[in-house]
Formats: sequence, C-alpha cells, structure tokens
Amino acid sequence: MSSGLVTSRRNRRTPYTDRVEALGVSGFSIVNHTLLPKSFTRSVEEDYWHLKEHVQLWDVGCQRQVELRGPDAAFLAQQMTPRDLRSMAVGQCYYTPLIDNRAGLLNDPVLLKRDCDWFWFSIADSDVLLWAKALALGMKLDVEVCEPDVWPLAVQGPRAEELVARVFGDEVRSVPYFSYIERDFHGRRLAVARSGYSKQGGFELYLDDSTLGAALWDTLWDAGVDLEVAPGCPNLIERIEAGLLSYGNEMTRENNPLEINLDRFCHLDSEIEYIGRSALEKISAEGPNQRMRGLLIEGERCPPCAKPWPIFADGIKVGQVTSAIWSPALGKNVGLSMISKSHWTARTPVKVAMPGGVISDAVIVTLPFDNERG
Amino acid sequence: MSSGLVTSRRNRRTPYTDRVEALGVSGFSIVNHTLLPKSFTRSVEEDYWHLKEHVQLWDVGCQRQVELRGPDAAFLAQQMTPRDLRSMAVGQCYYTPLIDNRAGLLNDPVLLKRDCDWFWFSIADSDVLLWAKALALGMKLDVEVCEPDVWPLAVQGPRAEELVARVFGDEVRSVPYFSYIERDFHGRRLAVARSGYSKQGGFELYLDDSTLGAALWDTLWDAGVDLEVAPGCPNLIERIEAGLLSYGNEMTRENNPLEINLDRFCHLDSEIEYIGRSALEKISAEGPNQRMRGLLIEGERCPPCAKPWPIFADGIKVGQVTSAIWSPALGKNVGLSMISKSHWTARTPVKVAMPGGVISDAVIVTLPFDNERG
Repeated sequence: MSSGLVTSRRNRRTPYTDRVEALGVSGFSIVNHTLLPKSFTRSVEEDYWHLKEHVQLWDVGCQRQVELRGPDAAFLAQQMTPRDLRSMAVGQCYYTPLIDNRAGLLNDPVLLKRDCDWFWFSIADSDVLLWAKALALGMKLDVEVCEPDVWPLAVQGPRAEELVARVFGDEVRSVPYFSYIERDFHGRRLAVARSGYSKQGGFELYLDDSTLGAALWDTLWDAGVDLEVAPGCPNLIERIEAGLLSYGNEMTRENNPLEINLDRFCHLDSEIEYIGRSALEKISAEGPNQRMRGLLIEGERCPPCAKPWPIFADGIKVGQVTSAIWSPALGKNVGLSMISKSHWTARTPVKVAMPGGVISDAVIVTLPFDNERG
Repeated sequence: MSSGLVTSRRNRRTPYTDRVEALGVSGFSIVNHTLLPKSFTRSVEEDYWHLKEHVQLWDVGCQRQVELRGPDAAFLAQQMTPRDLRSMAVGQCYYTPLIDNRAGLLNDPVLLKRDCDWFWFSIADSDVLLWAKALALGMKLDVEVCEPDVWPLAVQGPRAEELVARVFGDEVRSVPYFSYIERDFHGRRLAVARSGYSKQGGFELYLDDSTLGAALWDTLWDAGVDLEVAPGCPNLIERIEAGLLSYGNEMTRENNPLEINLDRFCHLDSEIEYIGRSALEKISAEGPNQRMRGLLIEGERCPPCAKPWPIFADGIKVGQVTSAIWSPALGKNVGLSMISKSHWTARTPVKVAMPGGVISDAVIVTLPFDNERG
C-alpha cells in the first residue's frame, strides 16, 4: 500500500475495503476515522472522464451515520440545524448544515428521515456523534443517539440508474433526487437514495449490515460489467467544477452557512428554535463579509492546494483559495475560494499567491463552473 | 510525498509541518484532522533504538487542546471524567479517561490545569471539542469551550532533559512527572510539561502561538546537534513494550475504563458527580468481563495489525489483538490485546489467528512488557 496508512485499527476499515484493495486502490484518505479510497490505477483526470461517461462504485462507508431515535429525535434533529425540518417526510433526504451557538459550521450532512422518530445524519468529517450525544444528555432528551452498523455505498455516473435498476428493480428509476425507497437485499431493507457527491447522477445505498458488504459490492459489480463499471471515489475535478463543497476544506467552524451560500437552508423567519439561531440572525441582518465563489486561475496546471492560497487585489488580501485543480473541460485551473464582499462580484480580477512564489492572474466567477462552458 | 495524503486543507498542517517535510518525513497519519508524522528516513526499528539512546523532536500538534475557561470550567471538566479532580493543582497534568453515559470511552487525554477556571484537555483522536461544547450548551454552563492556538511539540528520549534545560533553563530539571512550569519563549509563556507518549523520558512544550512554530523547532534543533537530536514520532515498538494504549486502537466507545485497567482513575467511592458514573458503578460491581493484557506471540516478524486479530483457546474466541509488532529487545512479537476474564491470567497459552491464515502460539503477560526482560 503506497499510502503507508493502513496499519492501525484506529483508521477503520469499511465492509468494502477488502474489495477496493483487491481492485488496486493506490491510496486512502481518512474521514471520520475511516478509510476513504483516494485513487485507483487511473489518474484523477482519467477517472474524471470515466465518471462522466460510465458508472463507478464508491466506498463511502466513511460517511458514518449518526442515528437519533426516540420520542425526542425530531426535536434534537431540529436543534442541530437551521434548516426547517417541519415539513420533512419519511423517505426524504435533506442537506442540513449543522451549526454551533456562534453559527459556526460543525458539519454538513445529509439527513435521512427513516421514520417519525428515527433519523440518520450521514456525516462529513467531524464527530457529530459526540455533539448529538452530549446535547441529548445535557438537555435531558428522551432519545437514543448511536452510530449504527450502516455503511453507504455510492453508485455514481450517468449509467448508475441503469445499474441500480438492474439490481434493485425499475422502481428506483422514479425515485426523486434526495429521496429514498427501501429495497430488499439478502433479507435486509436497504435505503436506496438518489444522491451522491457528484453531479453525474447516481444513488447511495445504505447497507445496514456490514457482513453483507462484499455481497453488495459483488452484486453491483457483476451486474455492471457491460456498463464499464469501475471502482472510484469522489473526483476532485468533478466536485470543484460542480461547486460541491467539502467540510474541512471550503468550510470550518470559522465559517457560517451564509458565507458558503447556504442561505436557502437557513430559516430565519420561521418560528423554529435551533442552536445558533440568534447568532445567525445577527449575521444575516448585517450581511456576511465574505462568500464562497469560483475562481478561474490562469497558467499551467496548479499543484494540489494543501493549505489555503492567499488571494490579492491591489496588493491587499481579499480572500483565499480552499481547493483547486486543473479542469480539462475548461482548459484552466478552477478553484473554490472565500472572497471578501469588496471583491466577490463575478468577473472581478484578482491575483493568487501559489506555492513556490508563483503569482497567477485569476477571475472571480459564480458557482457552479458549468456556467463557464461556452 | 509517498503517502499521497497531503493534498487538502481538511488534513490540517501544524506549525511544525514545514520543518518535518524539510527533514524528509516519508508519511503521515491523521489524528484530529491534523497531520501526524509517521516515519522519516529511518526504519521503525532504527528509530526505536535512536529514541532509547538520544533525543527526538516529535510534531504532536495533532494533540489538539480543548480549552474550558470560565466560572463553570472546573464543573464541566469533572462532568467529563471519572477521575477525581478536586485535589488537582494548577501546574499539574492528569491522565483523564473521558466516558459517555454508558461508561464508553470517548478519549483519554491529558488534562492540564492552567488556572482555577482554565483547563486544557490535550486530546487523542476524537472531537472532544464537540462533546464539551454540547455539554456546556445543553447544561447551560457558564464556560467558554474552544480549540486554542496551542500546538504541542514533544521532546522525547533520555537526553531530552538536557536539551530542554539548555533552551529553557535548569529549572525544568526539577519538574515532576506530569507537571509543568511556564517558561518564556519569544514573549510567550510556554507550558513545559514533563510528559509524552513514550517511556524514555521527556517533555511536551505547549506552544501557544502558531507563528512561532519554526522558531521553537529550530531553537531546539540547533541546541541539540551534539545530542544527536533527530525528528521522530511515537514509536510503535516502544509504545507497545511500554504498554501505552492508543485511543481507537486499544480502546473505543465499546470499551469502559476498567477493561483497559484504568481502575485507579475511576473514582467510584467518592461523592463527585460525572457523566457515566452509574453505568461505571454497575460495571465495577459486576466486574469487567475482559481486560487489556500483553501478548507474546511466537513466530516470525508479524505484519501490521490493521484490524483486530482473533485470539483463541481450545477453539473458542477469547479475545483480540489490537496492536502488535516485532520487539527487538525481546526477540518476539509483542501485542496488546483484549482478553476474556476466563483467560486473562498471566502465562495462559492462547493462539492468534493472523492474516493469511497463520495461526501462532502466544502467551498472556502482564503489562508493561518490561517485566518480561530477564
């Protein structure tokens, strides 16, 4: 294993790790103390083109679930997010920013409503389990909070619907975006959700029995041979072009949801109560001082953005690049960046200070980058 | 970078990362969303011998601090741990298991009492920040909980005292184990603690200004040339021989403190209140069903223990190995393992099922392994 990383139980394996190892995974990242495949035999760019044309299986078991179950489950879920959950129906998935009492972002999970008193937060990289458990304890709520034996497997790409329909039936074709249905698999009822961390279409399968990981992987694999199914992982080029944000990269506790353009998920005029509401109301009244924007960066292929790159205008720092990569579709480097109000208007020219003293010209654009295609 | 890991802001750099990169770090692990150097140019075994003879600088900035400050800080700290904090003095460091309401371990940090109303938990790999913040919110406590700009740098090895004394003065020589004093550094007051994740002696320096990371590293480096100072990291051989446990490896939320022999840190007969006390009392009354033990494993050098290895006796599973490695000092493989009550007595023979179908003979021993040296 070239990553030299997989030597400890602390970096948890998923029910699919054996399979991705057999398929030649060449490195892992760590999300939620769990292995996330990072690359296979193809380059990021080859993987990008494959994802946009065919179908891939992604081991996203690291998207751990935080389960809230019991009489106060709905109350606790609402305490944790500014998104109004009152009209959420069983079978829906909601993208839910989670914030603290200062409106700082703690995570940006997808929330699944499994039943009236049963929720799963499918989380990005922070221990929401500890947050939810401590809130329940401190507020003396009647709710069980745990990490269940649930391991999402993503099927992404334009041929994902065909593949999932072959395995789980044509009913999946009519599942709306960010909804799920339950389908049988070896005696379990799997939540089959139309969602995923790409914009190429696809599903996430919430396997709730780790002993069936190999069976689920193999069933999809065998059914997808003629669809050119391949192992994959979230693709950095595709996600940046699509404007998909990553917790820990584009946002941290230092950011509020308005800064990353999540205004539509922040209910300020409703009567619901949640943690951080007064802080968020104040930020909203004053207006955020910075926002997430796209950036087109001139020059050669940029290096990986391992730490934020400062953005300047007229010699003054006006923001920072949080993720960046060469876009083969646009023939330019594309970046996600946090930009001061003074410079966040589209088409504003700026300069980016990259590693090694390279200063590149760049221009602010709206997200997603699809708008930039001729 | 062979690890292929350092490509994202989400995997946070420390104030020392530039320095360890310049010194040829060959891989990182991730702890608390932060880079932990994993290896340099030497093998783990060469590094082990160096650590036992000389002095090393370890970038343990990943040991993030969770700061509790305010009128209810002491109350909240006590809520979080079964260890009795009433007699803890300013200037002391306490090893503190943190448990949830079921007495499941959430972390095992070192707690520093900075002042009567000011504490730092120097944490292992889980987001204690979210746990503490949510408890404070839910219990409506008057305390500020944050992650301050504090980045521990460890100086470990038999010559560590000499090196730290050269830089911070001979007063450090009289600092007791698990205590700290404050020393000046470029206008800051650093907590200089006699502690660290090895049994070779040493200090941890709590730098509270990330802009001074390079200066602190360089000052120690320059002062240590004739002491054969080298970059290092927690050494797996040394820590297993010393019986030092690792959160996420030897213990998870599934374990209680008694199982990992932390009885002396669990105050059950005192009048203090803390989360999980009733659960812990129940476990104590019944006695734990399994405990952490050492294991001497016969055979060739074992592979890395990436997932727990089952332990059998008379064909029945009686435990699992959680960490293991070849011990050059003992000439055997040494392991840390969780063993059922029926088999936890020292000298009990067992069998270990290792990867690839290898079954090895092994024997239970008490910790630490020093006892095994002739």
